[in-house]
Amino acid sequence: MTSPLRLDPDRLFPAEARTREIARTLYGSVATLPIVSPHGHTDPRWFAYDQPWDNAAELLLQPDHYLFRMLYSQGISLEALGIPAHNRPGRADPRAAWRLFADNQHLFRGTPSRLWLDHVFAEVFGFDVALGPDTADLYYDRIGDLLTTPRFRPRALYEQFRIELIATTEGAHDTLEHHEAIRASGWMGRVVTAYRPDAVIDPEHEDFRPALARFAELTGEDVGSWRGYLAAHLKRREAFIAMGATSSDHGHPTAATANLSASQAEALFAKVMHGTWTSADAELFRAQMLTEMARMSLDDRLVMQIHPGSVRNHNRWLHGAYGRDKGADIPGRTDYVHALKPLLDAFGNERDLSIILFTLDETSYARELAPLAGHYPCLKLGPAWWFHDSPEGMRRFRKMTTETAGFYNTVGFNDDTRAFLSIPARHDVARRVDCAFLGQLVAEGRMKDWEAEELIIDLSYNLVRKAYRLDEAPTRPVVPAKAVAA
Amino acid sequence: MTSPLRLDPDRLFPAEARTREIARTLYGSVATLPIVSPHGHTDPRWFAYDQPWDNAAELLLQPDHYLFRMLYSQGISLEALGIPAHNRPGRADPRAAWRLFADNQHLFRGTPSRLWLDHVFAEVFGFDVALGPDTADLYYDRIGDLLTTPRFRPRALYEQFRIELIATTEGAHDTLEHHEAIRASGWMGRVVTAYRPDAVIDPEHEDFRPALARFAELTGEDVGSWRGYLAAHLKRREAFIAMGATSSDHGHPTAATANLSASQAEALFAKVMHGTWTSADAELFRAQMLTEMARMSLDDRLVMQIHPGSVRNHNRWLHGAYGRDKGADIPGRTDYVHALKPLLDAFGNERDLSIILFTLDETSYARELAPLAGHYPCLKLGPAWWFHDSPEGMRRFRKMTTETAGFYNTVGFNDDTRAFLSIPARHDVARRVDCAFLGQLVAEGRMKDWEAEELIIDLSYNLVRKAYRLDEAPTRPVVPAKAVAA
Amino acid sequence: MTSPLRLDPDRLFPAEARTREIARTLYGSVATLPIVSPHGHTDPRWFAYDQPWDNAAELLLQPDHYLFRMLYSQGISLEALGIPAHNRPGRADPRAAWRLFADNQHLFRGTPSRLWLDHVFAEVFGFDVALGPDTADLYYDRIGDLLTTPRFRPRALYEQFRIELIATTEGAHDTLEHHEAIRASGWMGRVVTAYRPDAVIDPEHEDFRPALARFAELTGEDVGSWRGYLAAHLKRREAFIAMGATSSDHGHPTAATANLSASQAEALFAKVMHGTWTSADAELFRAQMLTEMARMSLDDRLVMQIHPGSVRNHNRWLHGAYGRDKGADIPGRTDYVHALKPLLDAFGNERDLSIILFTLDETSYARELAPLAGHYPCLKLGPAWWFHDSPEGMRRFRKMTTETAGFYNTVGFNDDTRAFLSIPARHDVARRVDCAFLGQLVAEGRMKDWEAEELIIDLSYNLVRKAYRLDEAPTRPVVPAKAVAA
Repeated sequence: MTSPLRLDPDRLFPAEARTREIARTLYGSVATLPIVSPHGHTDPRWFAYDQPWDNAAELLLQPDHYLFRMLYSQGISLEALGIPAHNRPGRADPRAAWRLFADNQHLFRGTPSRLWLDHVFAEVFGFDVALGPDTADLYYDRIGDLLTTPRFRPRALYEQFRIELIATTEGAHDTLEHHEAIRASGWMGRVVTAYRPDAVIDPEHEDFRPALARFAELTGEDVGSWRGYLAAHLKRREAFIAMGATSSDHGHPTAATANLSASQAEALFAKVMHGTWTSADAELFRAQMLTEMARMSLDDRLVMQIHPGSVRNHNRWLHGAYGRDKGADIPGRTDYVHALKPLLDAFGNERDLSIILFTLDETSYARELAPLAGHYPCLKLGPAWWFHDSPEGMRRFRKMTTETAGFYNTVGFNDDTRAFLSIPARHDVARRVDCAFLGQLVAEGRMKDWEAEELIIDLSYNLVRKAYRLDEAPTRPVVPAKAVAA
Repeated sequence: MTSPLRLDPDRLFPAEARTREIARTLYGSVATLPIVSPHGHTDPRWFAYDQPWDNAAELLLQPDHYLFRMLYSQGISLEALGIPAHNRPGRADPRAAWRLFADNQHLFRGTPSRLWLDHVFAEVFGFDVALGPDTADLYYDRIGDLLTTPRFRPRALYEQFRIELIATTEGAHDTLEHHEAIRASGWMGRVVTAYRPDAVIDPEHEDFRPALARFAELTGEDVGSWRGYLAAHLKRREAFIAMGATSSDHGHPTAATANLSASQAEALFAKVMHGTWTSADAELFRAQMLTEMARMSLDDRLVMQIHPGSVRNHNRWLHGAYGRDKGADIPGRTDYVHALKPLLDAFGNERDLSIILFTLDETSYARELAPLAGHYPCLKLGPAWWFHDSPEGMRRFRKMTTETAGFYNTVGFNDDTRAFLSIPARHDVARRVDCAFLGQLVAEGRMKDWEAEELIIDLSYNLVRKAYRLDEAPTRPVVPAKAVAA
Repeated sequence: MTSPLRLDPDRLFPAEARTREIARTLYGSVATLPIVSPHGHTDPRWFAYDQPWDNAAELLLQPDHYLFRMLYSQGISLEALGIPAHNRPGRADPRAAWRLFADNQHLFRGTPSRLWLDHVFAEVFGFDVALGPDTADLYYDRIGDLLTTPRFRPRALYEQFRIELIATTEGAHDTLEHHEAIRASGWMGRVVTAYRPDAVIDPEHEDFRPALARFAELTGEDVGSWRGYLAAHLKRREAFIAMGATSSDHGHPTAATANLSASQAEALFAKVMHGTWTSADAELFRAQMLTEMARMSLDDRLVMQIHPGSVRNHNRWLHGAYGRDKGADIPGRTDYVHALKPLLDAFGNERDLSIILFTLDETSYARELAPLAGHYPCLKLGPAWWFHDSPEGMRRFRKMTTETAGFYNTVGFNDDTRAFLSIPARHDVARRVDCAFLGQLVAEGRMKDWEAEELIIDLSYNLVRKAYRLDEAPTRPVVPAKAVAA
């Protein structure tokens, strides 16, 4: 038994007729605007070498921890989904994994994954029947066939998706070779990197030592000295900027910042290097480094993104057996008002500094984040993140931040994904939710229609360009001149 | 002056016409489904001996702390409501108490108590005028009369309410004699117990010592030794299972768990037994016992329910004068992400373990509970609990858990009540709120109608049977064979 | 280019037609009810001396930290807005400041400031074009002209606004001379004070020492002794009551209370006086003083207001350069369940004590505040406060408190503002939001229409009079007899 797949053109708009009409009109003006994706986790190799993907399971299921964590929560093993444990390298048949996924579509009812998948299936692959037990093979085969065609190569999809810019995220110890390759290729797409130095900043990161070694190697600096370590950051930031970076990104367990004296910082760094640090020292070092990063941003203008509050690798056994990013990161309570004070005491009133704050703790929206962003010139609010990048999550974000921070202390949408094919779906959901939100404000006499018309363009396009300083890019050409000529 | 009492057949459905129509249709398919009540606090004596209740005040007002706490908050004494202090055994005239209640109906506007009461008054007792000063005596008299009739006896109401199963909750030191009596009676109703060992686990419980003594007596174990204490739990769990239990229940101040070594646990237990424990020791012992209970569940398959986060007996004077459960339990902030880690590190990936998490701290819904349940195979989310068992509370539960945990990591509804007559009302509210929620998803193009039709049956009936393992019951016959024959 | 300014008569009502109709009908019965403003920060000099305001910037922009903090957050300097730093007394041209404000109206989209401003512009000043770059001068000039006319003097506006009572807030060390002047003037307006002793209670307050000195001077008590210090409070409370006060107000960093023995309290006080206190001592002293204030309230019947949870002066540099109340107070997490216990253990069951609780931490609404107010006779819930005094904030307040605390443990609306001209706008927003909330309850069959009709009057008018004991006032005549005669 199959059921039809048809995207409701009014999806995510309020049911009430007048509000829906307003939302629909607003959406008409942004539905086809270019996608600007300033923060995400796509693989630069896709754009550098433009190789086809292999099959539906590899492309859509196995990299998407939103999907396999839900299946795992219902007792399905990761092996059966084609995600092998470290010590058991055998890989499940991808078709069998796909069928298991198809059999369990009901688990995704009411989740954003369902909205994104339906959009990908209908709009990208052209299906008109829903995925389910009876259509698993149909899906698997048709997707497999399409992936062999030129229009399903990464660069073709980039263009088809109307992407204007996409940022990937690389560690401070990354060579950026794939970004070099993209530039050298002469392809017109604008793929930029972002500076994510967590592995060389966090003594508790499992890759801290090897990452530091690579960091030293790539920079030629003595990263065992505080001065050399900071110089290495400066060099790598410069290298990232040369690969289009306009932002850094910091995923610490908390939002703690510190502003130690130079000698205190140096002493702390020495402890970290000698491996004599405690967990409190590690926290203090991460805290100090956020302030150091802010200081560097004042010079090189990288926008700082702070993504705190995730307890990474919460499932000890799973982490040991399968590694990171397996759907086992769980948010905890996160304080901002005290945590950010040292950094803000140092640089909070600098108009040339730009820090974008994210949270997994929605209780901070109205209580801390909106008041902070509605006051400090250097602060902006990133969009609803990760577990909250969903219709209800985005709606709570707007409802709990707008009245204090307004719209203009926000920065547009981040898709924040490694699921490349879902990018148009994600931006579409965000735009629709904003249209619905503005539609309600207009319908309730809280905003004029012409204001909403201006705002929806700002929320969908202008704010992200401004917040991520993308229009400062001309001084750092993304596409080599010859490519432009071609 | 009286006003009519008439239940709106569309109550709790959204006002918008199309959404309401969808909700109404969904409701049509679940309105008369049997009630499965896997967690509650009704008195097994009612079903064992089937004696009539005495009067309206004793049946409806005096056992319901939702009602008398609200009256107390407005300056009405508990004595006047017929709830005597320990040292003043005199009891108020029940009719006078009822009149006081009737005079203050306005206090319940906008509360779920009002929804439940109206349902009981209209549907169970057949009133068509509202309770108020002018109808207090009418109500009191008619209810009194009806309670003398056979169809208002407990078993008759059980049947009239279409209850398929109801669980009571007994302490580890309870004899279960009333459950024995129910079984011996040959009555067909399925009344089961649940294992609630708080009083023998929590050194800070006021009944800890006497409860332990009974626990020893009932099991014949040396509960002063760690080995004997654990053996006593095993024996009692077995006895509870014989009385139909499929779950245990744990109402600790926090969700803390621990996983001590055997020798550490034994040493801690010795402190607890010798009365040399600190408050931190008590917390650690409770934490350790959750892990012990999980370990036992792996063998005997009791589903664990964890109900943490209430500061019990917050009102010192009232607790001294009137005792427990007088509406003075106040929730506090509750952490899950760190608290549950020791237990989850031990057993989190066991597919045969089932733990149902509840919260009084709604901030944990989207931040901690949904991500935990959306990953760990052993975790499910209990429904909105206690203060949040209300239309807005249930709606927040769905809005804040569904996008990350989905619907299938939830377990249906718990009425969790000692107010037996309100059970149909409570299940009706839950079903209506779910119909409204699904109705909105369908109306906004976020779910297909056929998916909502399947889901509403699952949410109202199937999930609870599965989550509480009620269909494993055939191996543990509830009704003696001769009763079945009769 | 200009756009019209027209207030939607149905603003803030739900879009759905039937719900809107109910809300509109309810609003009709309260739209023109008198304004009772029991808590706010208007300047008593306005009413004492009835002098005209100077210009639009001075009246509407410079005292309103909601407005200038938003402009500051977008990089506009306070100097440019006419708010000078301490050490640079030069003041910007008020017209230039106003133009800057006019140019940035888009920043206020979706904020309550926009609702209030539009109401002031349209209803108070009669504008029919919106404020913007092209109308900045029109606004500035017309407002300037109107302010010179008699009907824009403070007392005339008080009457035009249908204010029945307004409370200002004065420190314990205030002379109350302006309140004396109001009474001596024979004017009929009822302007009362409220007792706000923070500066003489909080050792960490920047004015603690000078405030204490004034406190001693005004009372003639030896405020260096515990006994004298308490006696001074009693005297000043009496003086405030003579100036119409029916409430005290306490803005501590937390809601902590304590109940020390007399000797402990005296020893703590000695530390505070000798300047040998730690930050923990300061917290404990503030905590103890809340309990002392409650004890005094039992005698003199002042209603206590507790406004905790703001981290004042979060921006260190700005505080140093510009001083307090510059939009840099940021809320933090606030506990009530443990914090209030010592005070409640002492006086929680006193029916003659009335404590109104406020919060900036909305997570406490459903979790702690509603359960506390729904049980303790002495507790009531203040309305949505500060950052949450907004349509969404008020709506969250009702949704998260009503089901547990009901409506009758709340106290009506506080405008809490120094922006005098916005007072009618603020009460209007509150009434409309309540009409919308009740309208939804009625439309969804959760409340009868006649109940909503009673309730909206209670929420808009009766509850505030009762909660603030305004009807006990006849024993303390506000208006001298001769004035009444006149």
